[in-house]
Amino acid sequence: MRLTLLGTGNSAGMPLYGCDCERCTTIRQFPEKKREHAAALLEVEGKKYLIDAGLMDLAERFPAGSLDGIFLTHFHPDHVQGLFHLRWGIGAKIPVFCPPDSTGCADLYKNSGILDFKLLKKFNSFDVHNLKITPLPLIHSKVNFGYLFEFNHQRIAYLTDTKGLPEKTQIYLEGMKLDLLVIDTSHPAGIEDLNHNNLNDSLLIQRNLGVKRTVLTHIGHDLDVWLSNNVNLLPENVNAGYDGIVIIPHM
Amino acid sequence: MRLTLLGTGNSAGMPLYGCDCERCTTIRQFPEKKREHAAALLEVEGKKYLIDAGLMDLAERFPAGSLDGIFLTHFHPDHVQGLFHLRWGIGAKIPVFCPPDSTGCADLYKNSGILDFKLLKKFNSFDVHNLKITPLPLIHSKVNFGYLFEFNHQRIAYLTDTKGLPEKTQIYLEGMKLDLLVIDTSHPAGIEDLNHNNLNDSLLIQRNLGVKRTVLTHIGHDLDVWLSNNVNLLPENVNAGYDGIVIIPHM
Repeated sequence: MRLTLLGTGNSAGMPLYGCDCERCTTIRQFPEKKREHAAALLEVEGKKYLIDAGLMDLAERFPAGSLDGIFLTHFHPDHVQGLFHLRWGIGAKIPVFCPPDSTGCADLYKNSGILDFKLLKKFNSFDVHNLKITPLPLIHSKVNFGYLFEFNHQRIAYLTDTKGLPEKTQIYLEGMKLDLLVIDTSHPAGIEDLNHNNLNDSLLIQRNLGVKRTVLTHIGHDLDVWLSNNVNLLPENVNAGYDGIVIIPHM
Repeated sequence: MRLTLLGTGNSAGMPLYGCDCERCTTIRQFPEKKREHAAALLEVEGKKYLIDAGLMDLAERFPAGSLDGIFLTHFHPDHVQGLFHLRWGIGAKIPVFCPPDSTGCADLYKNSGILDFKLLKKFNSFDVHNLKITPLPLIHSKVNFGYLFEFNHQRIAYLTDTKGLPEKTQIYLEGMKLDLLVIDTSHPAGIEDLNHNNLNDSLLIQRNLGVKRTVLTHIGHDLDVWLSNNVNLLPENVNAGYDGIVIIPHM
């Protein structure tokens, strides 16, 4: 499995609109430091799966036929907004695996176009080609699934957006010996949010689960600023994600 | 008044995702021929107003403080999707004038951030600085306003999305001697759609209103293809809009 984080920002993205702090000013000068909205690409045996669809240029990045499926964590706009355009394409349907959220986002269900929404059930594992997927409930203001991806004895958990973990999800993952955890870490330590982890929340989760490697994502403004000054304070097996980072679990 | 059309495509945009026709192939080779989603910039006495917010790079195009207001025609995603990001900025609120649609789009009302939604009433004219604005009801699947903009004896009507015009809107505009009409023309002649004009609908409206100059917008795939072969068949005072076209009514 090969995972590329395409968008590692929170709903506001970085730079923050209207913010003239040193970090935002730097990012405007060096756009490669930007944090786009939630999206990641999982590649397995030549198949390409998108995890969340917050990027608005999906049509350019993934020409028709190049995506074998999309996994949505939830239907907040910053995780699905790229689909508003893509859906009106022509040709083969794209399977979109998602939590059973009856409201969806705006008119995505009503006008689904080439998107073939497949509503999942928590903890009900299923296979797509040789990839095994298990939807895991998280703690957020909208129905939300993290995903456990398993292939060839490798295990990746992609958990965003969440504040901590539900007990059953934690217990499910504890026995898994995860090779890689990608975890919502929106805020620096000390900032409490009912819907998103801060850095301490994420470090506690990675310790409890005994993960080999952890990558932080969904990084908000204040954590981005903190990381730009303190990235060496992260534990050795914990990395701050960035747009474009390629992660191959066994390496 | 100076009007720049920034996005002249319909909800699918051009090129159409998954389409390999000659026109879509050409557009992929020459991106300057693309049609982005609905947005236009109206400039009056140094003030800048956005009409619809379908572009996803509004933060880059319009740094904080550069927009004096936004006029939304309606809350379909292709007209508001650029706001999902912009709202989380910091600093001064941006007035967003819109029709009284209690549902809005996704969670835009609930989490409005720096957007200051101002719900308008049909035919109730109001002034912003020296610009006079009149919201005009249209015929669409969602509550929708066209706008009459008046400044210094110039009159621009921006009417999208609509199929024909309600009688009261037509009567209101008949006496106006419009300098410029920008009109939803999604389809070529002969294609009927309850929510969008075809070319014949638009030409009938421009003749009925006695408009000096008309520019077509919200152009869908089939009309774009037709125009690429038949642009000379349009009446002399009717132009197909394109992304980036600058229109100064008195010129």
